Amino acid sequence: MNEKDNTKRTRKTTSPETPQKRRYYKKKPAEKSAAVLPTEKTAAGTVKTKEIRRTPVKIIPLGGLHEIGKNMTVFECSNDMFILDCGLAFPDADMPGVDIVIPDFTYVERNRDKLRGIVITHGHEDHIGGLAYFLKKINVPVYGTRLTLGLVDGKLKEHGLSGKVQLNVIEPKKTVKMGCMAVEFIKVNHSIPDAVGMAIHTPAGIIVHTGDFKVDYTPIDGKTIDLARFGELGNRGVLALMADSTNAERPGYTHTERTVGESFDKLFKDAEGRRIIIATFSSNIHRVQQIINCACLYGRKVAVFGRSMINVINTAIELGYLDVPSGIIIDIEAMNRYPDEEIVLITTGSQGEPMSALTRMAMNDHKKVNITPMDFIIISATPIPGNEKYVTRVVNELMKSGAEVVYEAMYEVHVSGHACQEELKLMLALTKPKFFIPVHGEYKHLKKHAGLALQMGIPAENIIIGENGNVIETDGASMKIVSQVPAGRVLVDGLGVGDVGSIVLRDRKHLAQDGLIIIVIGIERSTNEVVAGPDIVSRGFVYVRESEELIVEAKHILTETLNNCSAAELKEWNTLKGKMRDALSDYIYQKTKRSPMILPIIMET
Amino acid sequence: MNEKDNTKRTRKTTSPETPQKRRYYKKKPAEKSAAVLPTEKTAAGTVKTKEIRRTPVKIIPLGGLHEIGKNMTVFECSNDMFILDCGLAFPDADMPGVDIVIPDFTYVERNRDKLRGIVITHGHEDHIGGLAYFLKKINVPVYGTRLTLGLVDGKLKEHGLSGKVQLNVIEPKKTVKMGCMAVEFIKVNHSIPDAVGMAIHTPAGIIVHTGDFKVDYTPIDGKTIDLARFGELGNRGVLALMADSTNAERPGYTHTERTVGESFDKLFKDAEGRRIIIATFSSNIHRVQQIINCACLYGRKVAVFGRSMINVINTAIELGYLDVPSGIIIDIEAMNRYPDEEIVLITTGSQGEPMSALTRMAMNDHKKVNITPMDFIIISATPIPGNEKYVTRVVNELMKSGAEVVYEAMYEVHVSGHACQEELKLMLALTKPKFFIPVHGEYKHLKKHAGLALQMGIPAENIIIGENGNVIETDGASMKIVSQVPAGRVLVDGLGVGDVGSIVLRDRKHLAQDGLIIIVIGIERSTNEVVAGPDIVSRGFVYVRESEELIVEAKHILTETLNNCSAAELKEWNTLKGKMRDALSDYIYQKTKRSPMILPIIMET
Repeated sequence: MNEKDNTKRTRKTTSPETPQKRRYYKKKPAEKSAAVLPTEKTAAGTVKTKEIRRTPVKIIPLGGLHEIGKNMTVFECSNDMFILDCGLAFPDADMPGVDIVIPDFTYVERNRDKLRGIVITHGHEDHIGGLAYFLKKINVPVYGTRLTLGLVDGKLKEHGLSGKVQLNVIEPKKTVKMGCMAVEFIKVNHSIPDAVGMAIHTPAGIIVHTGDFKVDYTPIDGKTIDLARFGELGNRGVLALMADSTNAERPGYTHTERTVGESFDKLFKDAEGRRIIIATFSSNIHRVQQIINCACLYGRKVAVFGRSMINVINTAIELGYLDVPSGIIIDIEAMNRYPDEEIVLITTGSQGEPMSALTRMAMNDHKKVNITPMDFIIISATPIPGNEKYVTRVVNELMKSGAEVVYEAMYEVHVSGHACQEELKLMLALTKPKFFIPVHGEYKHLKKHAGLALQMGIPAENIIIGENGNVIETDGASMKIVSQVPAGRVLVDGLGVGDVGSIVLRDRKHLAQDGLIIIVIGIERSTNEVVAGPDIVSRGFVYVRESEELIVEAKHILTETLNNCSAAELKEWNTLKGKMRDALSDYIYQKTKRSPMILPIIMET
Repeated sequence: MNEKDNTKRTRKTTSPETPQKRRYYKKKPAEKSAAVLPTEKTAAGTVKTKEIRRTPVKIIPLGGLHEIGKNMTVFECSNDMFILDCGLAFPDADMPGVDIVIPDFTYVERNRDKLRGIVITHGHEDHIGGLAYFLKKINVPVYGTRLTLGLVDGKLKEHGLSGKVQLNVIEPKKTVKMGCMAVEFIKVNHSIPDAVGMAIHTPAGIIVHTGDFKVDYTPIDGKTIDLARFGELGNRGVLALMADSTNAERPGYTHTERTVGESFDKLFKDAEGRRIIIATFSSNIHRVQQIINCACLYGRKVAVFGRSMINVINTAIELGYLDVPSGIIIDIEAMNRYPDEEIVLITTGSQGEPMSALTRMAMNDHKKVNITPMDFIIISATPIPGNEKYVTRVVNELMKSGAEVVYEAMYEVHVSGHACQEELKLMLALTKPKFFIPVHGEYKHLKKHAGLALQMGIPAENIIIGENGNVIETDGASMKIVSQVPAGRVLVDGLGVGDVGSIVLRDRKHLAQDGLIIIVIGIERSTNEVVAGPDIVSRGFVYVRESEELIVEAKHILTETLNNCSAAELKEWNTLKGKMRDALSDYIYQKTKRSPMILPIIMET
């Protein structure tokens, strides 16, 4: 294990040269890709490509297809394998009590000897959130850009893994070798700095994976997506493109991040004389930069709220991704020394998360911040589907305290981090892939993205809408789904990883719907006599004090059921439990049209 | 009780004359409203109104403020009281197992002698859904337009109340007397035909309540909102305006329903050769009319799916609100006689409701309809906040079956039924109210609407953002909140009305989060000896077969706890339960970071 500075690149395991300079493959060089294949004239005089079959490569998505989140893809060739991203997803409403969802690592565990490393496209939770859980099982080197690994290291610290994992910084345009494959990092724009796409040079050809991306011609850090490199690869011949489908439903272009800065500028003017509070995603460091720029311009100090916001901002400052003039950021404790109109608060909670700083402020439950009509609040985010009601609740509560709240689309206080249809078409036009695999999205997104590719002339049979666990194999000539590996969702609840499954969830949902009735009886084993009970205990079913009659009658029905049991039946406890359950559930449903969980417990005395 | 045709107006209890022709008030005539009050010249020569204090009127919203849904307002003057609307709300995610939410009727029950009747603005659930529950408690006459009462009658049938309630049809422009007050019905546009606003003529002045409304200059039934009457009332002097705030966040105008017809026309062309399936709100009869019109134009037959869709369409046809050429609507069983390209299905499920026809079709669970690539599906609705994920799931599943699905805003297959900011300003400009009470909306909507009124010159002190249960009193000169009556939410779960309260909900949510552990012990009363157990039963906590060690250790800890109890402690069962709960919960939290509900049960043997 590399115990020293783990964000520093380790020469040993990486190959920083560009792929032009060096060959990685034992068999055919990647440079000889489809576009420069030997050709032959056909009878009609047109050129037909002679397809050469090469060492096959397997692409195995373990997450990110038919869903938003838990992105993870395995690339496998001969005896080598690597992972691209290892993210988490947030639980749906049908997973009560679950904290996060991570991919099923079974397939990789079974092939751990082949595993050469993990490359990460950027530092968002849906791309790095599963990493610590994976690394606890298999500790392999992780490769990413500097900021990405800074954020990964933060995650590892939380899991007690910091310093125990080899983290290797790779700059865009550089390449890391993964056995017979090599992964080239290509700069893209996204809602977090230092995001990259990947060109995976394999014996079968070049596979381009965009990661999450958008095209921003005027990004805050001045670093535009390396469209030229995508084009260069396209001209050399891209075997397959795997591209981000999150915004495939949206026509047009995603606006530049600078749009938000212009809106902030206007709003800072409007907010004159009041305190400004801005909630946004902690990882959107360009957004934070723009807030800091506005604060400087308007002579305000910045105070930072929310654990993840503080962590990310500290990491970004340390690594040089935030330009903060000295004295601009002040300690929360020092806030009181400045009048309201000289303060900007940056906070988490833009999704209305119940425990976030903004939500606690809204609910009058924050120790340091009390919302008043002297507050001008900007929610610089769009609710992620499923969070709409949480955000609305926070907006309502903030407004009730008399604050002005700016949150609607028309104020342009947020832009997406994902490419819209025109940008997706641009990526397809640049890379000119032979095969196309839309990734990162629900089925509707993948389908829309496939539709764009079809419009642009990629034949339907060359477009694969896969599912998690599909083994997509290509030999450079063809590409198809050849088999299936385990790829479910693993639920994390508290310290438990995978111990909450479908039965536990089914019970939780049943309990939530109609609550629970417990029947307890005591049976003397020697005589098979009922010596105690039946007693009834209920929770989440009905307010018992106002339903005494119902409970008394229920006991009566159970007593009768027991009285009607033969001595033989009193021995067969499973049958006896079934009888009690049926009798009670019929009665309860008839009286209340509810179906609580009924749990008979027999005590042997 | 009036047992005969209950949709026919009962002369006895209604006063169909317009208020111009007749006086309703004992004290001052309503005609002498603020605008025609005695005036006096001031020193500067300008006219100053001399305010006359009149018999006070109380406005008591029991639902619809700080929420979307369960609209209900009480108007009270001297010894008379009436109710405007009696709706339901759908439960939030924090009310597991709850079917619907209705207003708290306590205040009206306590004053039942004063109650003269209920007026209904239109037939949507959030305006009529609480009616049956109310009428079971207090049976009073209900007044509404013909279609509204047709839909109310359907609800009453479901509750076994049909024929037992006096339903009185009132046409727009007509007035119904409510003791010393009189309610004039005024035609408005909305996403259901026959919607009205109300002018409430009271001794204190005229109060205008818009109901839900929009302005549609080209409505499908040709009946535009009676803007002229709102203007006429404005010139006579409106004491207070209560107006729909649902869309107060949206700038501009709501499009005419005809927009959707034009989109349908285009889409029917695109769908040539395929079966068309359109999901929409069952109550949107104008939308259904446009689908039928398109079906006629393109030579298709119409089949109707979903219980509520069938009910509403039947009612609308019976009452003459749908123009259906004979032979266009066919029976579901007759569908097979026509090729796909000659069929349109109209169905419920536009919100992705789990049990709806469209959802069952999407999940491959519908007996009559199998989705294939030969289907062209239009979701003619926008997800109501909170339903986004349900709708998305249905769209994904339909697409997986190969169908084309049109659901995005850009196709203009839906328009809202509520007024946007420009229409809200129009209503304010026409009615020129002295006081303004925004209604129907969460706080953010009410606040935005209040902001529009402020912009238009209504003084801030004349704008009241109330809360459910506020008693807003006005004597024509001033208006203020004078007291508070009970106005919570009453939860309906199965047959139970109000028997699920905060404790039951708290338990359900706790059970859903981390499940449940039951500890059972048997104690011999005479000796205070533990004669059975401790046994452990869990549900929704952890998959027990894979956590045997945890359960064994938990039993061990409980046994030790019991062993350490003195004989005195074994007598005090509450203390004993507390000890077992504490010991187990500490252990479980330390091992799992979860907090299941722990339920110790002691059996006396």
